[in-house]
Amino acid sequence: MSRTLGIVGVGLIGGSVGLAARGAGWEVVGVDSPGVIEKAEELGAVDRASTLKEIRGADLVVLAAPISKVTALLSELAPTDTLVTDVASAKGAIVRAAEDENLRFVGGHPMAGSQLAGVSNAKAGLFHGARYFLTTTARTDPDDYREVSGFVRELGAVPTAVDPEKHDLLMAALSHLPHLMAAALLKVASDISPEALSFAGPSFRDLTRVGASNPGLWSDILAENAPALGEALAHFAGAMAQLGSEIQDREKIEGRFLAAREAYDALGGILIEKSGRNAEVAIPVENRPGVFAEVTTLMGSNNINILDLYVRHSNTERAALVLTLDAKAAPAAREMLRSAGFGAEIQA
Amino acid sequence: MSRTLGIVGVGLIGGSVGLAARGAGWEVVGVDSPGVIEKAEELGAVDRASTLKEIRGADLVVLAAPISKVTALLSELAPTDTLVTDVASAKGAIVRAAEDENLRFVGGHPMAGSQLAGVSNAKAGLFHGARYFLTTTARTDPDDYREVSGFVRELGAVPTAVDPEKHDLLMAALSHLPHLMAAALLKVASDISPEALSFAGPSFRDLTRVGASNPGLWSDILAENAPALGEALAHFAGAMAQLGSEIQDREKIEGRFLAAREAYDALGGILIEKSGRNAEVAIPVENRPGVFAEVTTLMGSNNINILDLYVRHSNTERAALVLTLDAKAAPAAREMLRSAGFGAEIQA
Repeated sequence: MSRTLGIVGVGLIGGSVGLAARGAGWEVVGVDSPGVIEKAEELGAVDRASTLKEIRGADLVVLAAPISKVTALLSELAPTDTLVTDVASAKGAIVRAAEDENLRFVGGHPMAGSQLAGVSNAKAGLFHGARYFLTTTARTDPDDYREVSGFVRELGAVPTAVDPEKHDLLMAALSHLPHLMAAALLKVASDISPEALSFAGPSFRDLTRVGASNPGLWSDILAENAPALGEALAHFAGAMAQLGSEIQDREKIEGRFLAAREAYDALGGILIEKSGRNAEVAIPVENRPGVFAEVTTLMGSNNINILDLYVRHSNTERAALVLTLDAKAAPAAREMLRSAGFGAEIQA
Repeated sequence: MSRTLGIVGVGLIGGSVGLAARGAGWEVVGVDSPGVIEKAEELGAVDRASTLKEIRGADLVVLAAPISKVTALLSELAPTDTLVTDVASAKGAIVRAAEDENLRFVGGHPMAGSQLAGVSNAKAGLFHGARYFLTTTARTDPDDYREVSGFVRELGAVPTAVDPEKHDLLMAALSHLPHLMAAALLKVASDISPEALSFAGPSFRDLTRVGASNPGLWSDILAENAPALGEALAHFAGAMAQLGSEIQDREKIEGRFLAAREAYDALGGILIEKSGRNAEVAIPVENRPGVFAEVTTLMGSNNINILDLYVRHSNTERAALVLTLDAKAAPAAREMLRSAGFGAEIQA
């Protein structure tokens, strides 16, 4: 019997989830306005229309509505035993709301998108090879995490476990702050004189491109991530003030640029390599969710990507948290886990 | 008899000037270390080595040494009647120094370059189609300007007259400030956690690329433009603080992004189109340099590019400042000049 996926909000992301999930054998039902659902059926993004009430019977529900609606949708869905995930770009407030509602929830954020909105621009391959953040907290159930991360891999994406607050600070620094910087820089340049903008070169264009993003969408995204963005803004203002005070100190500025170049060389990309060879690392644990968060945070802060993770129950041994990692990263992961006081074994 | 060009500092820019000028029929002599001059001769960037003393006899001298050396070179050249220009990316202090030395000087700044340094990377076509700023002040002699702008066109570039202080503020906003922003953003991201940088997407890479520029070169450039950069930094900090205070006000942020998108759409490029059809606008003037600065500032702040400019002397009429403009811009320029109290006529 096929599994049923419910999607609330069938736009670019929701529609692409639907196309990819149907391709992977899911029955997909969608909740959106009648016109959108009709279009989504035509395009093969959903099998049929559903309602918020009926969707509670699905095996998995993906909330892909605009970020400002997600918290309200969580309240409307609760109480339910259905496993729920979302795709919003800020996670802290949403994960807290889901936990307040006692939902089975693993927050998601795919690092994939398009300048084009709406289901008519949806593509089954949108997530192919893309990083897909999944939140872990002290209350995340490892088996729920495993189900959602398995689904994410069915979409073609590569799951990465992350603490929701850490995720928001990352997004603030890597995406939201740059949008504000670009808008501020464009304002500074155009305030100088009317012709200033016409003198800009290609680097300036690269730097300010994100400032020309969809204003409505981005005002929503920034507002939802206000706490983390405020923190990133304060760090940035401090770093700028520091650089400003050093402008005439060539040695110091040279040092700053050397550090910047080193950081630039460490930048990743949106598409991440999938390794052919994986390894499992088993960590004997009491099955308490706190351990789970500690382990994923430890891996994350050491730049080790968790490809999969589940809890193995056994009659003869203690339960074990099993991480699937790139085989090359496994020995280092085992040593880190041992230094942190966990037992850890690499498995064949 | 061929004209003689002296180049002091035969690196990427100086060497490219030499190659282009030799192609245009100049005899080119160079001042640099013996090893560099030997290489430049081999590559055809100079005809022969010269000295700072001998170079005073050239028809035009281009100072293409590192920016931090230019002021000292001006003092070493003075006194001389030779027309001098430079290629430094900050102009205010250098133009003031040249005027203090009573040199015939028109400051230059080509918007062309390469990631690669040194004469071995020089190219005759480096300036082709590039904007080339030339400074104008109350003390600039229009005929000197005309000579230098003619030379710039021989290099294949398009001269744009600009006030030196305005130029520096433009460069601070369009280039120097972005370098600091990129360095600060890379610092904020790497301070969050070791893995943050690996999560960065292509937009972040575009935004921070300039942060990975040559540290030694850029510490020099920023130090030389410290006053204008300080001003741009203060404007930018204000704009960021303003945006920061508005994060949760979706309407205001949406308005900011709408303004940013409009500014982005007005961005120019480093290559500027050369119009096939030009027109001359003649402005009857007493031949006093002050008028010249007023006119070029008026054109600049209205986004009208001055392609050429000279003073026409006549026995029967008053002297006239003649601007060569794109034919399409000429009527608007005439009206602006008239509103500002100048007589102005478009000529066949």
